[in-house]
Amino acid sequence: MGATVCAAVEAAPDLELVARIDAGDDLAQVAAAGAQVAVDFTVPSVTEDNVHALIDLGVHAVVGTTGWTDESRGRLIAHLGRRAAEGTSVGVLIAPNFGLSAVLAMTFAAKAARYFESAEVIELHHPNKVDAPSGTATHTAHAIARSRAEAGLGASPDATESGWEARGADVDGVRVHAVRLRGLVAHEEILFGNEGEQLIIRQDSFDRVSFMPGVLLGIREVVSRPGLTVGLENVMDLS
Amino acid sequence: MGATVCAAVEAAPDLELVARIDAGDDLAQVAAAGAQVAVDFTVPSVTEDNVHALIDLGVHAVVGTTGWTDESRGRLIAHLGRRAAEGTSVGVLIAPNFGLSAVLAMTFAAKAARYFESAEVIELHHPNKVDAPSGTATHTAHAIARSRAEAGLGASPDATESGWEARGADVDGVRVHAVRLRGLVAHEEILFGNEGEQLIIRQDSFDRVSFMPGVLLGIREVVSRPGLTVGLENVMDLS
Amino acid sequence: MGATVCAAVEAAPDLELVARIDAGDDLAQVAAAGAQVAVDFTVPSVTEDNVHALIDLGVHAVVGTTGWTDESRGRLIAHLGRRAAEGTSVGVLIAPNFGLSAVLAMTFAAKAARYFESAEVIELHHPNKVDAPSGTATHTAHAIARSRAEAGLGASPDATESGWEARGADVDGVRVHAVRLRGLVAHEEILFGNEGEQLIIRQDSFDRVSFMPGVLLGIREVVSRPGLTVGLENVMDLS
Amino acid sequence: MGATVCAAVEAAPDLELVARIDAGDDLAQVAAAGAQVAVDFTVPSVTEDNVHALIDLGVHAVVGTTGWTDESRGRLIAHLGRRAAEGTSVGVLIAPNFGLSAVLAMTFAAKAARYFESAEVIELHHPNKVDAPSGTATHTAHAIARSRAEAGLGASPDATESGWEARGADVDGVRVHAVRLRGLVAHEEILFGNEGEQLIIRQDSFDRVSFMPGVLLGIREVVSRPGLTVGLENVMDLS
Repeated sequence: MGATVCAAVEAAPDLELVARIDAGDDLAQVAAAGAQVAVDFTVPSVTEDNVHALIDLGVHAVVGTTGWTDESRGRLIAHLGRRAAEGTSVGVLIAPNFGLSAVLAMTFAAKAARYFESAEVIELHHPNKVDAPSGTATHTAHAIARSRAEAGLGASPDATESGWEARGADVDGVRVHAVRLRGLVAHEEILFGNEGEQLIIRQDSFDRVSFMPGVLLGIREVVSRPGLTVGLENVMDLS
Repeated sequence: MGATVCAAVEAAPDLELVARIDAGDDLAQVAAAGAQVAVDFTVPSVTEDNVHALIDLGVHAVVGTTGWTDESRGRLIAHLGRRAAEGTSVGVLIAPNFGLSAVLAMTFAAKAARYFESAEVIELHHPNKVDAPSGTATHTAHAIARSRAEAGLGASPDATESGWEARGADVDGVRVHAVRLRGLVAHEEILFGNEGEQLIIRQDSFDRVSFMPGVLLGIREVVSRPGLTVGLENVMDLS
Repeated sequence: MGATVCAAVEAAPDLELVARIDAGDDLAQVAAAGAQVAVDFTVPSVTEDNVHALIDLGVHAVVGTTGWTDESRGRLIAHLGRRAAEGTSVGVLIAPNFGLSAVLAMTFAAKAARYFESAEVIELHHPNKVDAPSGTATHTAHAIARSRAEAGLGASPDATESGWEARGADVDGVRVHAVRLRGLVAHEEILFGNEGEQLIIRQDSFDRVSFMPGVLLGIREVVSRPGLTVGLENVMDLS
Repeated sequence: MGATVCAAVEAAPDLELVARIDAGDDLAQVAAAGAQVAVDFTVPSVTEDNVHALIDLGVHAVVGTTGWTDESRGRLIAHLGRRAAEGTSVGVLIAPNFGLSAVLAMTFAAKAARYFESAEVIELHHPNKVDAPSGTATHTAHAIARSRAEAGLGASPDATESGWEARGADVDGVRVHAVRLRGLVAHEEILFGNEGEQLIIRQDSFDRVSFMPGVLLGIREVVSRPGLTVGLENVMDLS
């Protein structure tokens, strides 16, 4: 992933790659090289230390590493707050997903959810995936459930009396189906229905190269967003 | 359904409607009116008697009523055999589904199944349906499983370790997912995958009027197919 | 359409139907019956007069009639402004489309457009439709084109050298394809692509009953939105 | 493509790779190595000479090279006939497409075509493709047109009066639409409609590795099919 990001930054006419940092390298090199923004795709065990070091160096950070908790995010917010009080404005963007189509699908699904009587999620992946349903689909179902609850909608109508095992997993009252098919990579389809109409939002990720436009967007946006931002959708213009 | 069939027969330039029979009417009227073919959309409790009476009258029958068993079909075959021995050639077509798109989807899925590593079925229906998965989807999954077994294929690859409730019902080793969505009627999607490719066969039934081309096809074909034929696909030209 | 709207209002627990107005009826009946909101599904030749009369009566209006121009909308704005200056706050909502799925598809497409290298539109309708592409698809393509232009995106990449007649209509630089198929009603699919990913937004209208949730939403929202609002998306919570 | 085929043959438990032939190599090596079947993915200028040489060597051939004409195929048939008369039974399979999903989609579409009032084809490819519509889509449309003509069906219903440029290319009376989208590879969707129902056959090719199951199938089947066979569908069990 690191190499792919470096290549994408080098190919972007408005960005310049000034340093590549490997495991074990000293992060001070980042500031020494004059970097304004650092991108962290590392592992859960080191990402928190990396980001605190970058904040100390006054370097903005775009973080794609998973494993952040409410506690570790809280420590980031506190650190960023102390730096702001000292007059140093640093921005950190943590994004669990840099795929624009995936982020947009989730965001649109959450917005649409309040306007439909029924909602279900189908996620489709390669058959080597060990967990079901996918994190993205679970995340989407939670967002739909939250949106429906805010709008005062109850559960989607469902007269099923037998065969519940065909009706998918119940995630916060939203049915989620997981398909595993050789040839596929990572795909999500969200279906909404009212009497006489249907809305489908579908997203296909064929290759990790698809994360690059989202990473570049994060790099461009984080410099003007001091403090912690979680989720790529929050640096996108979707209003 | 009876009225819809009568209207379709009347609208067909090559067919003539000569009698309409209601519950309690004497079936002898059918032969008296000169009918070559009778269409039976009644109820499981009377359909068998109806068809035997039609065979006695020498009238071919197209039957859309459910509830036939191996035993009741066996009695039909015996009766048709006796009539044939007497020199009277009568044809009976029993079809669980007259939707051309549904019948073709199932037939193509059975043919394709032996050529793909993975296969899954998604059926989508209105939320008032009480059973899951649908009879059509179950039938399709059985046909896929039979076809895979004949070709020496084992189960579709699946590394799932957790979250099995999202993986749908296991029908003969084929995963079947049931979606229930307001606005939908009856739909089926069959997905096949190999490394680097996917084949999708999808079928949508929006209205029962869609059964009429299949009923008319059955009427036209049954006259030249003495004996019992089960399944509309067996009077279609799919070789 | 009038009867369908009346039935939908009667079925809504928070709304009351107090008057039904037919062609030739006196609009004063609307106010006399105590209506707060009137719904106008008439014809282009009378809708403008109707709405001005409703404004004079102090009744809010939800308008589904087509044929409004910049000029006729300008006269409405002026009239509403005069009434506001007199201390009477009246709201008018003109919506070319009350289908929630259609409105959401267009709105989401406009928002997504700036984030993808490629965008195309496919609309699918029954074969009795005389014009192609559909107004909804044209409207969507314009919105996509505007959004791409604002983001500094040029035309979608396209190396086509021969066979342009297969590439659809060019609407503001966005390719729009029109499919006509027996069995369909009104459907739109918007495709966005980046290297390694795809986003599809699809909308199906199976029946005009699907317009009712949008009409009811308009009725509920217009009372708190003085002045002219054009487009159902502008009374929806999509921020 | 040659390297991919060699890897696929090596990985197949029932096949053995005995020789790799490059441009300029002597084809006699093929027979010397004991090959029963040779696979030719070369270029139009040399494929015909290659296949005639293989026939002389008594080696069956599976050919994926394009550029064959009625004349060059005629010369093959004559050569194979002379060898058969001499008592040497050699089989040659020429397939324009080894993608199982693509071949099945075309074959099923041709079979389904006679049963539907409407039919249209949408092909979707990466934006670097220079020709539209794709050869596969054109081939499919011709097959649909032929099947409709045999069944006595006229043109699909179409009331279009304006906007014909959105209605796609007319291939033998079948409308074909070409979508070009970054992120896609090669995809085809065939839509059939009757009153109240729809059948969709869709095929996705994500990677050329998807051709390997078809090549292996060809290798296994060609040995028992003396003479010339054109089209992978003719060695598949689709009856």
